[in-house]
Amino acid sequence: MPKGPSATLCSESLGKTGEFEFIRQIQKRFGFLHSQIIHGIGDDAAVLQPKAGDDLLVSTDLLIEDIHFTVHLHSFKEIGYRAAVANLSDIAAMGGSPQALLVGLAIPPQISRLNLTDLYRGLMEPCREHRVALIGGDTSRSPSGLFLSITILGKIKHGRSLTRTGAKISDHIYVTGTLGDSSAGLHLLQHRQEPRPSHTKRKGEAILRKRHLRPTARIDVGQQLVKYKLAHAAIDLSDGLSGDLNHLCQASGVGAELWATHIPVSTECQAYSQGHGQLPLDLAMRGGEDYELLFSAPAKNGQRIETISRSCNVPISCIGKIHPKEFGIRLKLADGSSRKIITTSFNHFTSLTSHH
Amino acid sequence: MPKGPSATLCSESLGKTGEFEFIRQIQKRFGFLHSQIIHGIGDDAAVLQPKAGDDLLVSTDLLIEDIHFTVHLHSFKEIGYRAAVANLSDIAAMGGSPQALLVGLAIPPQISRLNLTDLYRGLMEPCREHRVALIGGDTSRSPSGLFLSITILGKIKHGRSLTRTGAKISDHIYVTGTLGDSSAGLHLLQHRQEPRPSHTKRKGEAILRKRHLRPTARIDVGQQLVKYKLAHAAIDLSDGLSGDLNHLCQASGVGAELWATHIPVSTECQAYSQGHGQLPLDLAMRGGEDYELLFSAPAKNGQRIETISRSCNVPISCIGKIHPKEFGIRLKLADGSSRKIITTSFNHFTSLTSHH
Repeated sequence: MPKGPSATLCSESLGKTGEFEFIRQIQKRFGFLHSQIIHGIGDDAAVLQPKAGDDLLVSTDLLIEDIHFTVHLHSFKEIGYRAAVANLSDIAAMGGSPQALLVGLAIPPQISRLNLTDLYRGLMEPCREHRVALIGGDTSRSPSGLFLSITILGKIKHGRSLTRTGAKISDHIYVTGTLGDSSAGLHLLQHRQEPRPSHTKRKGEAILRKRHLRPTARIDVGQQLVKYKLAHAAIDLSDGLSGDLNHLCQASGVGAELWATHIPVSTECQAYSQGHGQLPLDLAMRGGEDYELLFSAPAKNGQRIETISRSCNVPISCIGKIHPKEFGIRLKLADGSSRKIITTSFNHFTSLTSHH
Repeated sequence: MPKGPSATLCSESLGKTGEFEFIRQIQKRFGFLHSQIIHGIGDDAAVLQPKAGDDLLVSTDLLIEDIHFTVHLHSFKEIGYRAAVANLSDIAAMGGSPQALLVGLAIPPQISRLNLTDLYRGLMEPCREHRVALIGGDTSRSPSGLFLSITILGKIKHGRSLTRTGAKISDHIYVTGTLGDSSAGLHLLQHRQEPRPSHTKRKGEAILRKRHLRPTARIDVGQQLVKYKLAHAAIDLSDGLSGDLNHLCQASGVGAELWATHIPVSTECQAYSQGHGQLPLDLAMRGGEDYELLFSAPAKNGQRIETISRSCNVPISCIGKIHPKEFGIRLKLADGSSRKIITTSFNHFTSLTSHH
């Protein structure tokens, strides 16, 4: 006789109708409409009216307890915030404008209403900033663990999407912001602090933790690159520079050389690395969830990219060059030597904890 | 000191890079493009070109192990099939044409490659039939339990969506197919069969099980209702007639009377009910996941709705009438008496197992 599934359900999770009604209320509270949304939350499907001449962008991300976040380290507001940025960043990497969000939420018994309100608050904070509306979703009990599934919709002028496939040989490779901060911040959250760090150190560590907990999606930069047709290909850095450069090169059928001395590492991340016996370059190469943009562009566009950097107030660094596929993906070190980049993708928590 | 999340991860789930590469291969295998899809799987976002004059429909559904399915009762192919139909049905209920699918998949360690291939096979079977392309998704390890999150995109002529909000007083209430079959089928899967059922009984039970395992999304009917502007409001029956009628009435701000003698129950479901000491009407009212369409339409459209029923080869029954909100939601029984319908939503497994 097959075992009935009900045996595996926690008793506390039963009778959650009130909980779901509560979530519907939250969603109504956060679900505003804008001009292209005809019908939002509360029907079998949401209805949007695309603007003539626009392409539609769509992307889905899963965020899973104890894989992408943990309630021991992240507040519910931070879980929501980071989930939103991970999705906004996908639209940024295409050069598009984010428009609308659908949120799937599987909720274990121990999560309170306050937790859920906080989660939606965090989720909608970066969304509001970009006028991204909550238009739908699904909620369910979860037998164990919190699961978020976010789908983001965006728009872009027809044919102008910045995909991963367009990198051309002799393009320069650029990256926004500084790399490795999020990893360092996560590591700091995971490990006990020394009893009395200096003021400077405390300040630096707070910056790194914040970079992990409240990352930024580079929407402006992506849009400007598209507007002025400056880039050939782009990807956002969620898996770490080495992994995501590999994705971009594979999709474009090219190789690449990174210049170690050009890879931007913040002073805070450098200080952290020194204090923890790590190489800043390692953190920059392998640390994930920076949500910076990596893109390739013809060398002649360098000056105009600098202008965008200034107008968006985001550092943009030229860190390497696209080569033929046969070249492979290599890192040129300060001493002029060059080595193959091992392109293991960032494994979120596990890659960091495996250092120890 | 905060506890590191890695402690909670199963060791078997580490080093899954190969697994994800495998899923990417599966997705490539099943991910075909059609004319409105510019860029499919394998970028930060998929790119679609909406047809001028079309609205976009979008819906997300979660399907969670031991809540919506269980590997003890459902094969991976069936899990995929049912997940696809649940989503196709949302587009059917809006009267739209389904176009594209994004699949989020959180995979526990014990799931094999064969399981995943079967899951995608099941998923894409009803999708292919309707030319719905797999255009993206996300995959992750799951610390425990299989989680599916499916987002479906569809299209419909601008302004023609069949929402839940349009039901008007004195509309007739219609339903496609027969109700309660899926619940009866699930119940049969969950409970030991008697040693030697008769041939007729065995056949009837097989039909019910199939109705649970391979439901049908009523896409044709939804599209025809929209094409000929016959209906005011619609919803698909995933939570059960009583729950979903309640949703429709709430959204439209109306009440309703159902006529017990008109509610369509299959002969197989009737036979099942008699054999299991249940009232067929109870199964029809509370049983979920039938994925039939419930809609309201002006009484004058009755004949044209019959024509659609014939052309789509789907039974459509008139089962009641829309009333003012104050009337509430009531059921008129065969003896002419009337009672309030208690609108508890279908709780998937738990509502069925709680009978025992």
